[in-house]
Amino acid sequence: MPELEQITAYLKKLQDSICDQLTLLDGKPFEEDTWLRAEGGGGRSRILRSGEIIEKGGVNFSHVFGPLPELLKKESPGAQRFDATGVSLVIHALNPHIPIIHMNVRYFETDAGDWWFGGGIDLTPAYPDYAQVQWFHGQLKEVCAAYGVDWYTQMKSACDHYFYIPHRAEMRGVGGIFYDHQREQVGFDKAKLFAFMQAVGNHFNTIYTYMVEQNRDKNWSEAQKFWQKIRRGRYAEFNLVYDKGTTFGLKTNGRTESILMSLPPEAIWEYDYHPEMGSAESAALAFFQPGKTYV
Amino acid sequence: MPELEQITAYLKKLQDSICDQLTLLDGKPFEEDTWLRAEGGGGRSRILRSGEIIEKGGVNFSHVFGPLPELLKKESPGAQRFDATGVSLVIHALNPHIPIIHMNVRYFETDAGDWWFGGGIDLTPAYPDYAQVQWFHGQLKEVCAAYGVDWYTQMKSACDHYFYIPHRAEMRGVGGIFYDHQREQVGFDKAKLFAFMQAVGNHFNTIYTYMVEQNRDKNWSEAQKFWQKIRRGRYAEFNLVYDKGTTFGLKTNGRTESILMSLPPEAIWEYDYHPEMGSAESAALAFFQPGKTYV
Repeated sequence: MPELEQITAYLKKLQDSICDQLTLLDGKPFEEDTWLRAEGGGGRSRILRSGEIIEKGGVNFSHVFGPLPELLKKESPGAQRFDATGVSLVIHALNPHIPIIHMNVRYFETDAGDWWFGGGIDLTPAYPDYAQVQWFHGQLKEVCAAYGVDWYTQMKSACDHYFYIPHRAEMRGVGGIFYDHQREQVGFDKAKLFAFMQAVGNHFNTIYTYMVEQNRDKNWSEAQKFWQKIRRGRYAEFNLVYDKGTTFGLKTNGRTESILMSLPPEAIWEYDYHPEMGSAESAALAFFQPGKTYV
Repeated sequence: MPELEQITAYLKKLQDSICDQLTLLDGKPFEEDTWLRAEGGGGRSRILRSGEIIEKGGVNFSHVFGPLPELLKKESPGAQRFDATGVSLVIHALNPHIPIIHMNVRYFETDAGDWWFGGGIDLTPAYPDYAQVQWFHGQLKEVCAAYGVDWYTQMKSACDHYFYIPHRAEMRGVGGIFYDHQREQVGFDKAKLFAFMQAVGNHFNTIYTYMVEQNRDKNWSEAQKFWQKIRRGRYAEFNLVYDKGTTFGLKTNGRTESILMSLPPEAIWEYDYHPEMGSAESAALAFFQPGKTYV
């Protein structure tokens, strides 16, 4: 059975391998801040800004521990202390044709012997390309298929549910997969669930490299940059109003700068903005409806 | 005693008078959207965008009613229905030297006979000017002094408390006054509390006109515009994470575009941004500490 030490060692290597690949794509290195948490643990925040491809990209590793927050006591009866570790990233590209990508893989355990995995990966294009969205979901379906026949379908549906913005009646993007509270069950022990974490994490480079290569040479206009910033406004709304990691982190004295690395470099809010009928922007909105199936 | 009809009539006139004055200052008229709420009532949202002075300004009147939301039942035992009416505004100026201003005056009543007033006015400059901040607080102190000797002190302190951003360890701006659940009490009947609502509302034009006239002719650089957008990011963070009106509105199916009119036209999030020591931006941050007294 994998121990916490093995999991954190994997996650640190994952952060390294993702940062290396992003730097290879972009040409620019990451800056790193290491930080300590007063109550226990800390992290390694890495940021790449104003690159050739990446306008703002944050790739965070953290391993925090200490007394279990009140809010989480119901999750692990009798527990007093916890460890949580994960890699979390959001990449905002300069070119509006390259989608925003988000990935998070995490592991949680308590001193009462409970543990679980969580994570997910999802895509938020300003201009969704049907073939690319289909390819993306196909990749995730394949990753999941090696673990459970219905995992992709379940996790895709959980993702649609999680990234829905009720006050906009639209999804943040085109979905992906999302899972949480993944515990031991018949046929799936901790080793197998850890292997799934690695399968998701290790696939990030393939997915994002493809998205960059497919779109990096597309020209873009001021109007397209404007639309990207409107969509980034929605991204900020979701993260600040609904995202559990963000709101929980901010309200429990997490490291603000690391939590808010996910926010877009620039966002626009225009009152009651509607794209023209028949425009590419209007077509994009059709993608942001939940419950669509791509593969 | 003032009735609901008198209060809504006053609030509509207040919206008119504020929009007239802003158009006089700016030169540009407001656009108006009237809207209906499925559960009862509606509003009049007015927006001025891309003006000479005002980059984005929203002035909303609303009067909504219907079944009392579960969340509010503890406020008025036995009540089934409510009426809520108010004027709410946020003005984002183009020039970084003109502060963002926010004002809200509101009245709430239920069919169990309970009622209360709430409101406030506060200022969020990117570049606070000590004399102007002092003048602003002096104006509010004078408005309050006609009603209660300690009202300004109490409401100033409530404002500091309300507009504090814990995850940034700073206030949204330089404060002002904030009050809520203002009910009948010894010496203050409904007529007197309605008069206070009017005193606050009617003073808006004096305050904002002064702020515009003091700062409109100041030149500004790209670096100053950048700092304004950084501060607007904080404004968006506060409104989306903590502001009760915004989060309650979004989560109870309010009119999204009217609620989010308060968001800045453009905002920037830069990782771990700190102004240079000794700069005007660094001096600005010193103003955003709570508990400062100006008058």
